[in-house]
Amino acid sequence: MSQKPTLFTSLSPALLHLYDLQNAVVVIIDVFRATSTIASALYNGARYIIPVDAVSKAIEISKKTGGIAAGERDGKLADGLSHGNSPLEYKRAFIENKVLVLTTTNGTRLLQMALDQGADTIITGSFPNLSSVCSYLLQQNKNVVLACAGWKDKFNLEDTLFAGAVISRVQEHFSIHCDSSLMAAYTYNCNKADLLGFAKNFTHYHRLVDRFGYIDDIAFCLQEDRADVLPLYREGRLVNGKNT
Amino acid sequence: MSQKPTLFTSLSPALLHLYDLQNAVVVIIDVFRATSTIASALYNGARYIIPVDAVSKAIEISKKTGGIAAGERDGKLADGLSHGNSPLEYKRAFIENKVLVLTTTNGTRLLQMALDQGADTIITGSFPNLSSVCSYLLQQNKNVVLACAGWKDKFNLEDTLFAGAVISRVQEHFSIHCDSSLMAAYTYNCNKADLLGFAKNFTHYHRLVDRFGYIDDIAFCLQEDRADVLPLYREGRLVNGKNT
Repeated sequence: MSQKPTLFTSLSPALLHLYDLQNAVVVIIDVFRATSTIASALYNGARYIIPVDAVSKAIEISKKTGGIAAGERDGKLADGLSHGNSPLEYKRAFIENKVLVLTTTNGTRLLQMALDQGADTIITGSFPNLSSVCSYLLQQNKNVVLACAGWKDKFNLEDTLFAGAVISRVQEHFSIHCDSSLMAAYTYNCNKADLLGFAKNFTHYHRLVDRFGYIDDIAFCLQEDRADVLPLYREGRLVNGKNT
Repeated sequence: MSQKPTLFTSLSPALLHLYDLQNAVVVIIDVFRATSTIASALYNGARYIIPVDAVSKAIEISKKTGGIAAGERDGKLADGLSHGNSPLEYKRAFIENKVLVLTTTNGTRLLQMALDQGADTIITGSFPNLSSVCSYLLQQNKNVVLACAGWKDKFNLEDTLFAGAVISRVQEHFSIHCDSSLMAAYTYNCNKADLLGFAKNFTHYHRLVDRFGYIDDIAFCLQEDRADVLPLYREGRLVNGKNT
C-alpha cells in the first residue's frame, strides 16, 4: 500500500463536490486572471487581500476597511469598483501596504465554495507563483485538490494547464488516480514550450484579447514565477504565506 | 456572422445543465462500455434496446417485455440481471431479434438526464460506430452537444477521446467555441495512432482490466467502425437509425 497522499484535479466548480476537501490542501486556480492578480498584488507588497464573492460585499468591506474595492464581472470592471482584475494594475508604487478587496466572476466564488465545503487549508495558484505552490504542496505532504475555476462552471484550458504544470512537478510524491490530472499533465507537457501560442485557441483568450485587448495580461498570466508568493487563506484574508 | 450550427462538449453529467439541449442532437458517450455495447447489440441484430436508469426498472421491464435484463453497477453484473455490459456478450447468435433492457452506472443514467433536460434528438456514440455518428451529425446540420458519461460524474479520458474523434471529423461544419471540445480534439489527435496504449493510463482501464480482466472489451471499445450502426432514441427505445 502506498502511503503517499492523494492528488485530484477538479475541472470545474460544478465538480468540486466530488472531492473530499477536508484535511487536504485546496489550490484555487483562476489563471485568467484572479489568482494571477492575487499573486501580483501580494508580490508587490499588498498587506493582504480580502476575497469576496459579491460586488456589493466588496464595496461594503472596502468602505469599512479602507481597502481598494477591485474586481470584475464578465471580464469588465463592475459598477462601484475602483479597480479591475488585471495583475498589471497592482504595481508596487500603487499597492504596497494597501489592502485589496477582490471579487471576480469565477475565482473568488470558487474560494467561497471551497470554504462552504469544509476546506481547511486553501492557497491560490497561478503561473506567476507556480514554484511556491509546488514547494508548499511538497512540504505539507497532505492530500491535494487542484480546483480549477473555469468560466461560469464551464471547463477551461488555462486553469487545466496550470494544474498540469503543478502535477508535472510534484507527481512523484502523490498517489494520482484521476483522469483529470492525467489529462492536465499531458496537455501541459505537450505545450509547455509555447503556452502563449497554445492559449491563442482558448475561449477565454478570445474573450479577453479580442474584446478587451488584454494581451499583456495574458502574457503575464502565463509566465512562471514572476510573482512567486504563496497566497494562503487565513481568517478571511489571503496573506503571503512566505512571510508567516 | 457564421451560420454554422454550434458544437459543445459536456465533460461530465454534472456539467450537462450548462448546455442547451433543445433543438440539438445530443450524443451520449460512454465508451467503457455502455454505448459500445449498445452499438454491438444493434449491429448484431437486436430488435431494439430499452435503456433504463435503475436495476429494478430493468428487471421489471424485462419481465413485461420478455427482453434480456442486462447491465452493471460499479463495473460488475448487478443482482437480478442476467447479462452484463460487455459488447462481446452480444454476438449475433445470442442477440438477434431480441430486446435488450440495459442499465449501467453512467451511460443510461446520462441518457435519462438528457431527456429530463428537454433533449429532443438523442443518439449514442462509441468508437465502434464512429462513422455513423459523424455522418448523422453532418446530415442533420443542427446544433450538437457531445455528452460524456464519465464515471460517477467525474471526468474520464475515454469518453473525451471519442468526443475528440467526432470533432476531428466534423469540425469544419460547426462553430466551436468551447475549450472542452478543443481539449478533446487535441488529445484525440495526439493519441489516435495508439488509443489502446494511451488508455493503459486511464482510471477506468485499471478498474476494468486490473480488477475484472476485461482487456478484450477495452480493445473492442477503442476500435473504429466495428459495429457501425446509428443508435437513435425514439419513444423509450434505441433503434438502429440506419434501418429507419
